[in-house]
Amino acid sequence: MSENRQILIASIPSGPLSQSDFEVRTAPVPAYGDGEVLCRTLALTIGAGQRAGLQGSASYAGAPRAGVVMGGTGVAVVEESNAPEIRAGDLVVGPTGWQEFSVHPATALRRVEPGPDPALHLGVLGANGLTAYFGLLEVGKPRPGETVVVSAAAGSVGHIVGQIAKKQGCRVVGVAGSAEKCGLLVDELGFDAAVNYKDADFRAAFKAATPDRIDVYFDNTGGDILESALFRMNLRGRIVCCGVVSQYDTAHPAPGPRGVPGLLVNNRIRMEGFLVFDYLERYDEARRELLGWIERGELKPRTTEFQGLESASQAFVELLGGGTVGTTIVRL
Amino acid sequence: MSENRQILIASIPSGPLSQSDFEVRTAPVPAYGDGEVLCRTLALTIGAGQRAGLQGSASYAGAPRAGVVMGGTGVAVVEESNAPEIRAGDLVVGPTGWQEFSVHPATALRRVEPGPDPALHLGVLGANGLTAYFGLLEVGKPRPGETVVVSAAAGSVGHIVGQIAKKQGCRVVGVAGSAEKCGLLVDELGFDAAVNYKDADFRAAFKAATPDRIDVYFDNTGGDILESALFRMNLRGRIVCCGVVSQYDTAHPAPGPRGVPGLLVNNRIRMEGFLVFDYLERYDEARRELLGWIERGELKPRTTEFQGLESASQAFVELLGGGTVGTTIVRL
Repeated sequence: MSENRQILIASIPSGPLSQSDFEVRTAPVPAYGDGEVLCRTLALTIGAGQRAGLQGSASYAGAPRAGVVMGGTGVAVVEESNAPEIRAGDLVVGPTGWQEFSVHPATALRRVEPGPDPALHLGVLGANGLTAYFGLLEVGKPRPGETVVVSAAAGSVGHIVGQIAKKQGCRVVGVAGSAEKCGLLVDELGFDAAVNYKDADFRAAFKAATPDRIDVYFDNTGGDILESALFRMNLRGRIVCCGVVSQYDTAHPAPGPRGVPGLLVNNRIRMEGFLVFDYLERYDEARRELLGWIERGELKPRTTEFQGLESASQAFVELLGGGTVGTTIVRL
Repeated sequence: MSENRQILIASIPSGPLSQSDFEVRTAPVPAYGDGEVLCRTLALTIGAGQRAGLQGSASYAGAPRAGVVMGGTGVAVVEESNAPEIRAGDLVVGPTGWQEFSVHPATALRRVEPGPDPALHLGVLGANGLTAYFGLLEVGKPRPGETVVVSAAAGSVGHIVGQIAKKQGCRVVGVAGSAEKCGLLVDELGFDAAVNYKDADFRAAFKAATPDRIDVYFDNTGGDILESALFRMNLRGRIVCCGVVSQYDTAHPAPGPRGVPGLLVNNRIRMEGFLVFDYLERYDEARRELLGWIERGELKPRTTEFQGLESASQAFVELLGGGTVGTTIVRL
């Protein structure tokens, strides 16, 4: 425990992200002071939104720069603690970054119960699952019988959104980027239909999959899929603006969708952005409900897993390329 | 009373509207049956939104076509009535269209009290004023001390929005298309600031006029002004999507604003379209409040007036060209 393997941002990408935008370094294990905790990372989660952070100032996550450790959320075991509320051996979730060891004030960490798989805390019980939960229920406000469409539907947030919407009695349609993902959504996760946006006949298939049009569109992508959904919205439809993955992996974000604001007026559509942090004081309540659903087999969280810290950059590139399903996890 | 002068749509405009898109015709005064009322138009109102109707199917107002009488709302005196609830001599507001005489079922008309100026019923007590009232208060929900920005601020809706926002204790900034309009807003209608979007330094002036950024943006224009406002919104700001006048007088609507949906997510912005008809059951309450404000001198409605039915097409073209202030009225 004298060396700390880390992955640094080597360069801020100007086009699609590549593994060469990262580099591995070995540094000393950091020292820790009063009220601080030394953590050893067990697993990291990588989300598409982190690519937006690499675009600089436009993101809520702040502006990373070349030469620093890549940021990210991990689950870790506490090696040593100088804080009374956390003990060595505790399991915590926190902003570990892409590295083996990290030091944090105890206030930056959340203690979690050791369960069958600590990675659960990075997915459905972490920011992804909470985003799905609050975004759908509090912003989208779906009612039984309504049609809910979700984009990036096989992704970390999307696959949870669709399953929660089914529990609300909605017709659920997923938009995803491969036939395999669409098959998974319908055959294993209970979606009513799924449409591959890469298919040449996407628009016709999308229309056929939404015969009663759309009441709630949970948007993880922006771009063309958002525009297609906007033109299928019912009167008083709601668009939950959660992410813009179509625009992350580029230096030149596209203009906004046609139909904004004209269709919003004509169809009285509400389009609303949110961040899960706004619901902080309700996290525990949501986690209890999500965990209950999982334990009763009513919610099936999915992960795609990579082994070893060095695989993190590959995992990130594959995630952005659409090669992963559910929450992307890197196990150290 | 044997002839009925009418203005027809001569052609659906493919670019900017011109007076030659209309033609005058003389037709017989229409017959009326059971439950119907013969009306003589006293004054018409023309709104920019009617240009959207001439774009065809995209509008909520339905698709007009060449050869029919141009639609529109008027205040009229009842000449003859076959309906028990309306009597000859009553003053009514209804869908008279651009013509001297029209026949309507009594249910399509609203009886109004004869006041000092019947045209008041077409402006601040009609759809324009109600749109300002409900859009600002129910969709925008401004709080005292917040900054409210309104575009087309010297227009029929905008100049009412700004004055109501002042009554809520807000800082109010108008965006308009000439120095004269900006002067009127600040000097006569009580706006805190007004910015001319045609000025070369508009962006700098807009920024200077919104030092605390924007909490509520009441959008009558879409286009570049919407985009500028979007980039100045505060966290949890609200954009009231009321109209898209920048896109009406064209056959080729522009793409949506940059920043949708990315900025909506980062700043948790709600962007919501509405139509005043959704608040039908609260019209009387709103009219009472608006009238009270006018009578106490706290709300100053403005009109630009044209004389004679034949001036309607000129009025419409001037309105779209930014040559009118307040509600555009054509008196017959």
